[in-house]
Amino acid sequence: MKKIKLPKGFLANGIHCGSKKKRKDLTILYSEKPCRIAAIFTKNVVKAAPVVLAQRQLKKTGHVRGVIVNSGNANCMTGKRGMEDAKKMVSETAKMLGVGKNEVLVSSTGIIGEFMNMKPIMKGVKEAVKGLSVEGIMDAADGIVTTDRFRKIVSRTFKVKGKRIQMVGIAKGAGMIKPNMATMLCYILTDADVSKKAMKTALLESADKSFNAVSVDGDMSTNDTVMLLANGCAGNKPVKEKEKDFEIFKENLNAVSDELAKMIVLDGEGANKFIQVHVKKAKTKSDAKKMSEAIASSLLVKCAVLGGDPNWGRVASSAGASGVKFNPEKMDIYLDGVPFLKKGKAIAHVDRKKTSIFKGKDVKIEVFLNAGKAEAKFFSCDISKKYITLNSYYTT
Amino acid sequence: MKKIKLPKGFLANGIHCGSKKKRKDLTILYSEKPCRIAAIFTKNVVKAAPVVLAQRQLKKTGHVRGVIVNSGNANCMTGKRGMEDAKKMVSETAKMLGVGKNEVLVSSTGIIGEFMNMKPIMKGVKEAVKGLSVEGIMDAADGIVTTDRFRKIVSRTFKVKGKRIQMVGIAKGAGMIKPNMATMLCYILTDADVSKKAMKTALLESADKSFNAVSVDGDMSTNDTVMLLANGCAGNKPVKEKEKDFEIFKENLNAVSDELAKMIVLDGEGANKFIQVHVKKAKTKSDAKKMSEAIASSLLVKCAVLGGDPNWGRVASSAGASGVKFNPEKMDIYLDGVPFLKKGKAIAHVDRKKTSIFKGKDVKIEVFLNAGKAEAKFFSCDISKKYITLNSYYTT
Repeated sequence: MKKIKLPKGFLANGIHCGSKKKRKDLTILYSEKPCRIAAIFTKNVVKAAPVVLAQRQLKKTGHVRGVIVNSGNANCMTGKRGMEDAKKMVSETAKMLGVGKNEVLVSSTGIIGEFMNMKPIMKGVKEAVKGLSVEGIMDAADGIVTTDRFRKIVSRTFKVKGKRIQMVGIAKGAGMIKPNMATMLCYILTDADVSKKAMKTALLESADKSFNAVSVDGDMSTNDTVMLLANGCAGNKPVKEKEKDFEIFKENLNAVSDELAKMIVLDGEGANKFIQVHVKKAKTKSDAKKMSEAIASSLLVKCAVLGGDPNWGRVASSAGASGVKFNPEKMDIYLDGVPFLKKGKAIAHVDRKKTSIFKGKDVKIEVFLNAGKAEAKFFSCDISKKYITLNSYYTT
Repeated sequence: MKKIKLPKGFLANGIHCGSKKKRKDLTILYSEKPCRIAAIFTKNVVKAAPVVLAQRQLKKTGHVRGVIVNSGNANCMTGKRGMEDAKKMVSETAKMLGVGKNEVLVSSTGIIGEFMNMKPIMKGVKEAVKGLSVEGIMDAADGIVTTDRFRKIVSRTFKVKGKRIQMVGIAKGAGMIKPNMATMLCYILTDADVSKKAMKTALLESADKSFNAVSVDGDMSTNDTVMLLANGCAGNKPVKEKEKDFEIFKENLNAVSDELAKMIVLDGEGANKFIQVHVKKAKTKSDAKKMSEAIASSLLVKCAVLGGDPNWGRVASSAGASGVKFNPEKMDIYLDGVPFLKKGKAIAHVDRKKTSIFKGKDVKIEVFLNAGKAEAKFFSCDISKKYITLNSYYTT
């Protein structure tokens, strides 16, 4: 894997402080200049302390200098003590970085309902800050994961307003295969100068097509967080909405988000196949989204994909149960590009057993509702026995 | 197993006609007198031909004399030919029984998207009608199942308006473990005389608490059907709504539905444990229902139960993701009667590994929202590797 460098003005580090037994468990991201920030948090009613704290801080401040992330404990359902612990992490990091308390945000991921073991974390903050470097993003990417099978990092270089822009994103998997893997975390850093409003628009749009369009097991966690930090060190004139360069910025942000989201899906523990569900010619965008999510999340569709079984009846049934109103007699279903249903009529194929459909690593399910022009994609993975094993016996 | 007899005036039979390789695959239920009927059908947008036909017939007719059910082929997404086949089944059965065409309803269960093999079915109708008997309900129960692990039949005897009433229900499993097991079917026969309106009210209420409150894999099928047939042969004065005897009738109907629904859950292929999720003190009934369903359907909660792991954090997270608004700081969570969360605070237990929680065959999850007086239950089962295996390789 080629070494990925940070955008200008950013430093990062990831270390092992002792929250987890072996792997790195503490990450710090730092910008020499104040960053504009756009952020998206979980919609789960049960929110972890760091999420509540970050949302509060972002109401007060327009910019940040640093982010601290620990993995191993989600600091969720931990009451007042949990909130105090989150605040301590923020103030210690701010102190070590020499910045204001509201300029540092905290994220956590791991087990729910247990108090933080603060001693190793407070010690770790000092060590992590001391080791901050321009080459630290790989370690930082390692520090936020839990049982992920591989590191998730993506970088892009592009030009905006005549300046070379760098963008790097890191993420951790959303597959809740262990209680300490409940969370989808993502941090995207760029040295572009982008207006606050443009950042927000761009992040919402790209998350909608990527992180909000992936399903590993259908559960939304208590700690999900996506942040976009832009420090302007590239020296470009600020990118604003409706400009041509805003489209370029968005395209690159979309590409980074998309790739990270696909990595998350592929890391769904035990998963072997990547499933893309594409609902087309729907009446409304919301119909297309609802239906593609229902099909991609169906346990029976996932099982069919695992078994390499072109069972289009399950796709039709999931579509019908999705809550979307449509005319089944107008529906077409394609599996891996091959039609199995056209205008509601089954197409007889010679031998299901001999087909290559659903046998590859990339599986495609297309549904045409022939009712309009809207479309949406949703991504998921197959399910495996390993998922069941990993999810069943974590404490016993 | 003790022999179960039919209510007065009913005859039944179940035979092997050849749609399936080995097991019985054709059932006929018949009443010597016209029956009042109440029925509930799938809400899936994709409806099988027999469902569409039965719904049409019930708009025209107030009573029925017979029901024919085949297992092995769902007759779904089969277009005009499928509808013709369903009609043929109805008219052949009506002819053999010597009743009108609109007095016979048809149900099908099995694979989606393949045309019916009508020859063995048409031959089977003759044979099944000839063999109709007062003792045929056990065979009838066998004729509607697909890969169920056991026969589902429940009977009750009770008194209404001074007369002895019999009620028998048969069902097939809802676990979509094979494409030919896509469906939940249920037929409840009684010799009581009950007004049409009272039957409808009672069936909707009992289905809501039973069949609509079970989750095996969360998928709603294209053929789901529940029917209640009452022929009045017990000779009681008609039971009407708001009478005391209506409550007795309802209680017994609820008991039959409840027991059948629990059998369906327990038959979820590979399942070993029965999970009861009870959300209490919710603000509204709809909140309680939504949340109990979300928790019971969570793949991660099911995995935790399989592993005997009292992972209350997953329960909290599923509750939070259910779409219900509530205050997590007021929430209590009990697992198998033991508190793990009280007013949003985790209760430390000595040793998770040594607990007996989630180790038994019956598992109980209770959530108190402490926001009102509404409550709801939802039933499900754990998940197992066997489920994955069975669902993955059916054609290959």
